[in-house]
Amino acid sequence: MPELRHDPIQRRWVIIATERGRRPSDFTKLEPDPHGGFCPFCVGNEDKTPPEIIAIRDPGTKPNTVGWQARVVANKFPALRIEGEADRAAEGIYDKMNGIGAHEVIIESPEHELHLADQPLDHFKKIMKLYQMRLEDLKNDLRFRYVLIFKNQGVTAGASLSHPHTQIIATPVTPHTVSMELESARRHYEVKERCLFCDIITQEVQNETRVISEIDGMVSLAPFASRFPFEVMVAPQEHSHDFTELDDDGLMAIAKCLKDILQRLRSALNNPPYNFVLHTSPNTHSKTRRGNYWQTLEADYHWHFEIIPRLVRTAGFEWGTGFYINPTPPEDAAHYLREIEVSLE
Amino acid sequence: MPELRHDPIQRRWVIIATERGRRPSDFTKLEPDPHGGFCPFCVGNEDKTPPEIIAIRDPGTKPNTVGWQARVVANKFPALRIEGEADRAAEGIYDKMNGIGAHEVIIESPEHELHLADQPLDHFKKIMKLYQMRLEDLKNDLRFRYVLIFKNQGVTAGASLSHPHTQIIATPVTPHTVSMELESARRHYEVKERCLFCDIITQEVQNETRVISEIDGMVSLAPFASRFPFEVMVAPQEHSHDFTELDDDGLMAIAKCLKDILQRLRSALNNPPYNFVLHTSPNTHSKTRRGNYWQTLEADYHWHFEIIPRLVRTAGFEWGTGFYINPTPPEDAAHYLREIEVSLE
Repeated sequence: MPELRHDPIQRRWVIIATERGRRPSDFTKLEPDPHGGFCPFCVGNEDKTPPEIIAIRDPGTKPNTVGWQARVVANKFPALRIEGEADRAAEGIYDKMNGIGAHEVIIESPEHELHLADQPLDHFKKIMKLYQMRLEDLKNDLRFRYVLIFKNQGVTAGASLSHPHTQIIATPVTPHTVSMELESARRHYEVKERCLFCDIITQEVQNETRVISEIDGMVSLAPFASRFPFEVMVAPQEHSHDFTELDDDGLMAIAKCLKDILQRLRSALNNPPYNFVLHTSPNTHSKTRRGNYWQTLEADYHWHFEIIPRLVRTAGFEWGTGFYINPTPPEDAAHYLREIEVSLE
Repeated sequence: MPELRHDPIQRRWVIIATERGRRPSDFTKLEPDPHGGFCPFCVGNEDKTPPEIIAIRDPGTKPNTVGWQARVVANKFPALRIEGEADRAAEGIYDKMNGIGAHEVIIESPEHELHLADQPLDHFKKIMKLYQMRLEDLKNDLRFRYVLIFKNQGVTAGASLSHPHTQIIATPVTPHTVSMELESARRHYEVKERCLFCDIITQEVQNETRVISEIDGMVSLAPFASRFPFEVMVAPQEHSHDFTELDDDGLMAIAKCLKDILQRLRSALNNPPYNFVLHTSPNTHSKTRRGNYWQTLEADYHWHFEIIPRLVRTAGFEWGTGFYINPTPPEDAAHYLREIEVSLE
C-alpha cells in the first residue's frame, strides 16, 4: 500500500510509493519505450488493460471488446489503491495515512495518433461528458476529498504512453494548490461577497489584452502572473464552482473553447508537449468526524482548466522557492495566440 | 525593467520579463550551446563578464585579470535590475512592482570541469564564505526582502553554462515557499516554544532511518515527505535561523557535509543533474512603511539546504496541484546513500 505523508514545513501531502521503490539504478537506465512499441490502449488490445469502468461504444458491441470510441479503465500501475481506509495516524511529529484512492485512465480515442486538438467537436464533447461522469461517480466515495483530472501530452510533459489519454486520480486529501486557491477565493468572498475568479475574469474581458478567445460563455486567457510562457487559463464567464454543473450546451462550449486553445498552442509553438489540469470544487459530500469537510463551496470556487505548454526547463530556483521567472509577458503570449487560425469542427 | 506580478489566486510573485519577451519561435529552435563552445567563466576571459564584485585571488593579482580562485560577478543577463525603486502599484485587482533586485554569479573555480563534490575541502569552505559575504552585503540593501542562493548543475537542472557556478538573486519579496515555511515554523513556535526544524531534526537523528550523514554538528537526511526521489535536506543540528551566523568551524562543517552528500548522490545516481537551494532567514533589516518587515526571526526559522537530483520528469499533476508522487521511499534513499564511500579532503 502506498503511503500519503504530510510535510509539516511546507504543509503538503506527498504520495510515497512503498511497495516497489525505485532504486538508484532505475534512474540511470534509459527507458525510451517501456512497452517496446506495443500500445495497450489501441483497438484489439482491450484485454491488456483492466476492465472498462465505462465506455462510449458503437451500438451492439460488448464491454472490453472492439467497437469503442472512448474507454475509461483503471490504471494498471496505480499511484493509489482503491481498497481500504485512510487510517490516519501520527508518526512522532509527522502525519500519514494509507495511500487509498482511485487512479483511472480515459482512453480518448481508438486512433493512436489523434491529437486532442483534432478530435471532432462532438467527440470532444463526449470526452468532457466522461470527465463529468467520473467526477460524479468518484465523489460518491466519501473517503475521497478531491478528484483530479489531468492530461500529460508528450514525453517531456510526463506521458509514458503516446496514445491519447487523460488521467484521473481521486485522493483522500485536497491538493495543496487547490486548498490555496480555495482559501484565496474564500477570503475574497468574505470581504467583498463576490467571487475572486469572477472579478478576475470580468477585469480581463474588459481589458482585453490577455484574452485569447471568448466562445459561448467560455473564455481562455493568459493569466496576469503566468508562471510559464504561454500558460493559459480556461474558465466559464458565468460563476460555477463545479465542473459537473455544466449542462449539454456548457459541455459543447467547453469542448469548443479547449479545442480552440489547443489548436492555437499547437500552431504557435510547433506542437509542444503540454499538461492540463482541471481545477474544480472538492468533494462536498466528503465527511470528517466533525461533520462536512467542506461547507458549501458554491460561492467560494470557480472551476477552470490550467494549460501549461512545457517550453522551458525549470531550475532549482523554481523548485526551491515557488518563485518563477517567465520570459514571455502574458500580453505577448495572448497576442501571438489570438493571431492563429483555428478550425472548430 | 522586468516586472514582479502577484497572483491573487495562488498568492505568489512571478518575475515577468518585459524587455525582450521570448517569442513562440524562440522556444522551437534548439540551442544546445548558446555560447558556441566559448566559456565566459574560464581563466583568461575575465573581460567577458561584468566586473568582479568580490574575488578570492592569489596575492598580488589585480581584479578582472587572471590569478583568481573564485569570482563573484553580476549576471550579464539579469532576471532583475539593480537600479530603481519597487514602486508598488495596483492594476485593478492585481498587484505589481518593478523588477528590482540583484542577480549575481559565483564562479566557483577556474577549472571548467571541476564538480563541486571534488573541490578541495578548504576551497569548498571558501565558497561557503563567499555565500555568507554576499548574503551580508545584499542584506544591507533595504529594498531587498530575501537573498536566494541556488545552484543548477547539468542542463536538465537548468544550467545554461557548464562551468561550475552558483547563482544569487536578491528580491524585493520573500518567495512563496520560504514564507510558507516561516509561517509553519512560527505557528509551531507559538504553541510549543520550540523550533519546528529542531523538533524534526531531533526526531530524525533519534530514529536514524532517514539520516544519511552526521558531520561536526551538520546532518543530511532524506525528508519524511520527500517530493522527489533522493531529495536531501542538510541543516545544522543546533538551532540557527541565519546562514550568516556560521563561524569558521561552522563553515568547515557545512562544507564537509555538503561535499559528503554531493559525493554520495553522484556515486549512487551516476552523476545526476541536480539543484540545491539555501533556505535562510529573510532580510531582517528590510523595512516597510509600517516598520520592520520581519520582527526578529531567531526563534522562527532554521536555515537549511534543499538538494534535488533531477531524476524524474514532473507531469501536469505536480504542476497543477502541488501534489507529488515519489517512487522512492526516503528510507530507501537514505539507505542507499549511507552505503556510498566518500573522500573528504
